[in-house]
This record gives sequence, C-alpha cells and structure tokens, in this order.
Amino acid sequence: MISVEEARARILAGLKPVAAEMVGLAQAHGRVLAKPVLARLSVPPADVSAMDGYAVRAAEARPGARLKLIGAAPAGHPFAGQVGAGEAVRIFTGSVIPAGADAVLIQENATAEGRDVLVNEALAPGRHIRRAGQDFAAGDEVLSAGRRLSVRDIGVAGAAGHPWLCVHRRPRIAILCTGDEIALPGEAVPDGGIANSNAAMLAAFVTAHGGEALLLPVARDTEAAVAAGAIAARGADLLVTTGGASVGAHDLVQAGLARQGFALDFWKIAMRPGKPLIFGSVDGLPVLGLPGNPVSAYVCATLFLGGAIAMLGGLPPAAPVLEAARLGAPMKPNDVREDYVRALLAHDGAGWVATPLPMQDSGMLRALAQAGALIRRAPHAPAAAAGEAVEILRLEMV
Amino acid sequence: MISVEEARARILAGLKPVAAEMVGLAQAHGRVLAKPVLARLSVPPADVSAMDGYAVRAAEARPGARLKLIGAAPAGHPFAGQVGAGEAVRIFTGSVIPAGADAVLIQENATAEGRDVLVNEALAPGRHIRRAGQDFAAGDEVLSAGRRLSVRDIGVAGAAGHPWLCVHRRPRIAILCTGDEIALPGEAVPDGGIANSNAAMLAAFVTAHGGEALLLPVARDTEAAVAAGAIAARGADLLVTTGGASVGAHDLVQAGLARQGFALDFWKIAMRPGKPLIFGSVDGLPVLGLPGNPVSAYVCATLFLGGAIAMLGGLPPAAPVLEAARLGAPMKPNDVREDYVRALLAHDGAGWVATPLPMQDSGMLRALAQAGALIRRAPHAPAAAAGEAVEILRLEMV
Repeated sequence: MISVEEARARILAGLKPVAAEMVGLAQAHGRVLAKPVLARLSVPPADVSAMDGYAVRAAEARPGARLKLIGAAPAGHPFAGQVGAGEAVRIFTGSVIPAGADAVLIQENATAEGRDVLVNEALAPGRHIRRAGQDFAAGDEVLSAGRRLSVRDIGVAGAAGHPWLCVHRRPRIAILCTGDEIALPGEAVPDGGIANSNAAMLAAFVTAHGGEALLLPVARDTEAAVAAGAIAARGADLLVTTGGASVGAHDLVQAGLARQGFALDFWKIAMRPGKPLIFGSVDGLPVLGLPGNPVSAYVCATLFLGGAIAMLGGLPPAAPVLEAARLGAPMKPNDVREDYVRALLAHDGAGWVATPLPMQDSGMLRALAQAGALIRRAPHAPAAAAGEAVEILRLEMV
Repeated sequence: MISVEEARARILAGLKPVAAEMVGLAQAHGRVLAKPVLARLSVPPADVSAMDGYAVRAAEARPGARLKLIGAAPAGHPFAGQVGAGEAVRIFTGSVIPAGADAVLIQENATAEGRDVLVNEALAPGRHIRRAGQDFAAGDEVLSAGRRLSVRDIGVAGAAGHPWLCVHRRPRIAILCTGDEIALPGEAVPDGGIANSNAAMLAAFVTAHGGEALLLPVARDTEAAVAAGAIAARGADLLVTTGGASVGAHDLVQAGLARQGFALDFWKIAMRPGKPLIFGSVDGLPVLGLPGNPVSAYVCATLFLGGAIAMLGGLPPAAPVLEAARLGAPMKPNDVREDYVRALLAHDGAGWVATPLPMQDSGMLRALAQAGALIRRAPHAPAAAAGEAVEILRLEMV
C-alpha cells in the first residue's frame, strides 16, 4: 500500500495537457487558456473623461470663470474641433478628451447658463481624465497561459478585442462501470441488484471539473467485457473504471485490462474509504480504477480524479485544498490508513466546525450527500477531543 | 437614493420561480429540484454483506470452528439455497446475505482449506451486514424540492432509481448592451470607441449562475433602438441592460423602455461603484438596468443579478455571502454610499487578508480581474487601520 500523497504524485506524473481549440468568448468561462491573451486595443483608447461634465483648459478653470460652450462629445462621437481659450465642450464618461482641453469640470461643480458654463471649482491639469492605456495598452499580455478564465477575465479579453480565445479542449474522460449486480437508473434491476449511481455521479463530477464525460455501456463481470470497454475508450484522455475488485479470486478489472496490455503502476493505497484504487495505462491511455462502492468512488474521485482532469486540462499539478476547522465531537485514534471522515459542517463565527457523522459505513450515499466536508486524518493520528483543530476538505457542490 | 439592502429586497420581491422541465440525471448537476425525489428502490435492496468473506451462522462462529463451503454469492448472483448448520457461503461486498446466515466472517479472519473454512474469530449476529433500507427505503424523500443538486445528490438520485429529474428550467436572461461607442470584440471599433466587454462577461456571469443568456444585438443610442431591444426580449424572464444613463440630458434606457410602457420601481442606489442602477418592468418583464462601466456592471451583477437568477431558478431569496477578513492596508473614512472596494486577497494561516488595490477607478477592468475580493464598507464607515476586521465578498471564478 502506498500513501495518498505518493498515489497522487504518480497519477499526475504521467499526464500531459491536452491540445487547444478556439472557443467563443462568452463560452470560455471556466476554460484554461492555452495561449496568453495579448491586447489588440488600448483601454482607454485615448485620454477619456472619467465623469460627466465639461472638457476645459485647466489653467482657465477657477471659481467664477465663464466659459463658452462650443459643442458636445457624447460617447462614440468625439468632438472634431479644438478647445480654445475661454471655451468648453460638453463631455460624458468615456468620451474622448477634445484637443486643447486638459481637464474635466464635473457637472456638479458647473452651472450651465444658455451657451455659457460657469466654473465653480479650480482644476489641476489632468483632473478626471483617464489616460490612454491606463488599464492596458495594445500588445500587453492581459491574461497569461494556464489561467482558468473567470467571468471578469472574459470581460478583460472582450475589452482587449478578442471574439474568441485559445483554450485547452475539455479532457475526455471515459467512464466504465462494471458489475453483474448493477442496472442503470430506470432499467430493470436484477434480483438482489442495485441501480447504478456511479455512472451519472462521475459524469457530473467530470463535467463540474471541466472535463467531457463519455459514459460507456456498463460492463458485465467478465474479462472480455472489461477489455471491450478499454477498446471503446480509445481516443479518451483518461479511462475511469469502477468496481471489479471483489469478484472472485482476482481483480476482474485488472484481468480484463490485461487482455489489452495493461501496464500497472500501483493498486491499493493506504486510505479509507477507497483502498483498492488502481492506476496504470493501456497503450498510452491512463486508467484510474475506482472502487465500486459509490462513497469510496466519490472520495477517490475527489482526491485523485479532480486533479487529474485539471492537469489534463492545462492547469499546474495541485492537491485538493485543505482548510482549518475545529472538531464538533471527539474522534478515536486512527490506524495505518489515511482516513477521510464524512462530517457535517457549520460556521460558528470563529470558524468552521466539523462534526463526524455517526455512521461512516461507506455504503451510506445519502449520508455522504448530507456531509459538508471530509475530515482528513493522518495515518496513526491520536484520539482527538471536541474543539481540537483538524484539516477538512469542503465539498459544497462538487 | 435607496440602500443596497432595500434595492435587493425590491428586486427579489417581484420574482417568481420559473417552470419545471425534466433533464437526464447526469445533466442535472447544479440544477434546482422542482419536485422532491422519492426513492423508487431501497438501498440496500436486502440485507447485504459489507465485506468480502463468508456468510455464516453467528452462533457457530468461534475460533477453531470448521464450516463447510456450500457455494458462493458473487455480486448480482444471490445464493439460491440456505445456509444450514455447519455451513458457509462465499460472499462479497454488496452480495445478498443467503437465507439461514446472520453474520459475515471477513476473509482476513478465515482460512480456506479445500471445501472447508476455518473460523479465526467469534462473531455476533448481524456482524458486517448492511441492513435492507439502511441508507434509504423505497418511498423515502431522499432529496427535497428547492435543493441545488450536488454531484453527490446525482449519485443519491441514481441509487434511488431515477433516470431523470424534475428541475426548474434555466431562467432566460436577455442582455441588451447600449451605446454608440461600443463594438463587439473583433468588429471594427468606431473612432474613439471601445470593444464591448459587458456582453460576453454578463453572458458568462448568467451561465455561471445557472441561467441561460440571450445576447441581444447592441442597441445604438436612440430611444427606438432601446425600445426594439425590449420587444426582442419578450419571453425572457429578466431583461438586463447596460449603459445609457449618461447620454445627453436624460436617461436613454428609461426613455427607450418608456416607449414600451416601462414601470419604474427605482433608480439610483447609495453604492459605489454603480450608483445608476435601474429596476422596473415592461409589461410584466422585470428589467435590471446596469451601469455601462464594466467594473460597475460586474459589481452590480454580483450584488443583484446573481440573486435574481437564483430566485428565478427556484432557490430561496439570499444575499451574497460575506466573509470575515483583516485589512492589509489602512482605509480612509467612507462617505454616504456603501462601497465595494476591489482588493487583493491572501490567506496568512490565521485567516483572509484583504488589501485594497491602490487604483479604484471603475474603468480598471484588469484590476478587477486581479482582485480576489470586494471589501464591503458601510455608509459612513470610519477610517480603518491595517489589521482591522472587515467584511469581504470573495470573487473566485465568478
């Protein structure tokens, strides 16, 4: 058995970012830039007004001065002439400052009298002017490669003049659930069998982490069916299997994949839930074998699959972010395996309080759905009292 | 001018959840349930084994006992017979417990010798058995209406036998950007004009908040163009406009909407950035008028549009979640307007540290993209020293 940390490192070590594609700007949210975004335009494009008011010559702006209004510059309609001595031009936020003017008198500090403007304040040159390129200049790198695009980044790229962006395509994650006992939800369930929860749950997990999920037909418990699944997954960036570790004397998934030349990296990790995790490859296709138990499958997906999708998608290698919390109830000492304990999560003003759910049976999917966090317990962690500090992995929507 | 809180309450007051639709299970992640999910199946479907091992009669299980192996029950293939005196059946995690057996001897505590099994531990009745319906029973409400579905919820609904779920459809949000000075990214920019960043940014915002974005063609600065936009938005659940508040002597968006019978609720709120926020309706269609400035538009969307989409989508009314942080630099006293200050965010172990960006000009979209949080400052907040407690709104990916 290897540690969680070693397993993560070995999984990520073999993964490379997938190729790039162009996507429309509004669709690029959450995607990872494959190339930096260089501004095609300067913002602002010229010296512009930061306020509604009057473009004036600062040297003439003093309380009591009277200027002659010679025109207006609405947004999108720059004033073609020049602001001469004793003159002013009506101007609005974002309008280009006319030639000759060097400051903006805001309308709250001016009085319009027919074609005249009375000045009610003194102005320094440059007052209320946004300089050309103040936000960024044409040619500037405004967003760097490898960045996951936020809503605001989409705004930046738009202002920089880009109708589409070069991002990594979504990693294709093939999902192969195995088992004679499972039926897809809505199908007739075999005697003593169960409706499969892993397929849709993992597909949603993959989508939520920026991947494209390819649900393969359920493989029955034969080596040939598992081998056929591996063949069907060709072209994917990662094959995820579930189950197959407890069928008869040997591991069915490994045996089935072996028919297609499976190269095993490791299996069995020192964690709970989820000891029988498999990692290897079939003809260059990485394969992550999750336990069939849905709780174990979900926890292992959270610890290993999320990071694998992120790395395939162009992000740097990273572990799930652990946060600080205090225990809401005591915990017993841990054994040799790193433990991920389902817990209710509350915030008491001072911080997060994580209370282990009483039933930790890994068959309890509903309890998992109610959990707000996993409490991470290191191997051999001693008993802990209520109130003690622990590390948690917040689950939220994913 | 009304307060941010009053503006939010007045916007949400008029919004009702949109109708429901059925979506496939794997596509339901992030959607809001319109009806509760009742389990169609019990999980487990019968008493099943929690481990790999042997189904036995607990009364016979004592160290040194020898049992006769009479068969096996792989997952999906229940044992048809009965476990009689001195007998055992090979069993696996999830297999149905055969009739006659009442405990599971785990394989680590047993020794197989030909057709015999040697017992190495004493067992109490029920040991390593998951009871029928332990997670949930057929008919149980496993997920309630109004819940936004997590990845784990998808698993629960799958285990409960549902191939599709009844969720609120995505609220349709029409987006109408106005202005003579703007061109969509990639199009020729008019003299002194700018590439529009609001359209794609707001579309991404809408999508990220669970809505469906409908980008209307940009409206030029005429009342007729704005009125045409309102007509094109019929069938949407909410119309969002940007800009138009600073064109000439009057508010162009309000004047244009008035041609279609605009009923104004309020405009102007006591906040920065984003004072000129408009809210009202055109023939029953709610209209939220955002400022044209992209920074102001984004901050107002975060404070008002996100909650409006959530409420249209079936969630209860809610305000953005403020979190605790400490200031990384001093701040001056605030004036009458509630202020949302762009800040860099770091975690120093003890908690979040928010440092106001030096340039708060609302034209700085790139600075907004670099911000990790908005610091909320109440009206008339006094000066604050570095290290003092503040409330922040974390921005992350949205």
